[in-house]
Amino acid sequence: MITEQQKQWMREAIALSSRNVDNGGGPFGAVIVKDDHIVACGVNRVTADNDPTAHAEVNAIRAAAKQLGTFDLSGCDIYTSCEPCPMCLSAIYWAHIDRIYYANTKYDAKAIDFDDLFIYDQLSLAPELRSIPSHRMLGDEAIATFDKWREKEDKIEY
Amino acid sequence: MITEQQKQWMREAIALSSRNVDNGGGPFGAVIVKDDHIVACGVNRVTADNDPTAHAEVNAIRAAAKQLGTFDLSGCDIYTSCEPCPMCLSAIYWAHIDRIYYANTKYDAKAIDFDDLFIYDQLSLAPELRSIPSHRMLGDEAIATFDKWREKEDKIEY
Repeated sequence: MITEQQKQWMREAIALSSRNVDNGGGPFGAVIVKDDHIVACGVNRVTADNDPTAHAEVNAIRAAAKQLGTFDLSGCDIYTSCEPCPMCLSAIYWAHIDRIYYANTKYDAKAIDFDDLFIYDQLSLAPELRSIPSHRMLGDEAIATFDKWREKEDKIEY
Repeated sequence: MITEQQKQWMREAIALSSRNVDNGGGPFGAVIVKDDHIVACGVNRVTADNDPTAHAEVNAIRAAAKQLGTFDLSGCDIYTSCEPCPMCLSAIYWAHIDRIYYANTKYDAKAIDFDDLFIYDQLSLAPELRSIPSHRMLGDEAIATFDKWREKEDKIEY
């Protein structure tokens, strides 16, 4: 059951997405809600800010974490004008957001030439079948840092 | 065939990861190389900066895009001390990076309690089976922004 309040939050995300197109950004907006209040919002500024990671949800997560002073957004919901791409969905997992509400779908995004579906497909492939080649090297040297981490007593885990 | 120069770049990523543990960050470092030179680097500052998206690769991508003045990192390679998580791998796709070199694996990351594998598994599930619930709403209202985008003549695509 979607409440009128939830519709208002989504309409705010949609309004952000629309204004962002007028302001030279991509057609995406998101708001993050905690305890029945909007704590942060974000819009897509990839081309405007020359930042490939500046999707609406990533920007909203970064702003919410800054606003709340924590990297753990448990207790927060995200309202996004479009179904999250794999980068943003993964960021939502890392941030421990509780619930996702979205309006446009990844199929709608594909219809206006955004690559979300292609990247979802790529991630599900074995690394050797992906379009971006990846190669392992120097694992024997890198593991020492993980050992150091494991043994560190005052580390902050997440 | 991995060259001595490539080993040096990876050793730089590993050194960054190690120093970052000493500096209160996570055990991850990355460098981005273009035209045989390092253009940017990044380390994991999730807990240090209260930013769930501040992984080494994301930070390196943001820094490289800023340094080069473009959201398109075609022609760049990334050397990362650990196999990218799904957020970072997706960011690498969005940035159009050419090749990935990594040292530690996602299995090594799991062994020190980082959630990369869990998130890879989650992304491969149908949305209704994922641990974070997602709900669609107001698609009929949000699509207008995508229509506006489609019709916009001076848009910058990526």
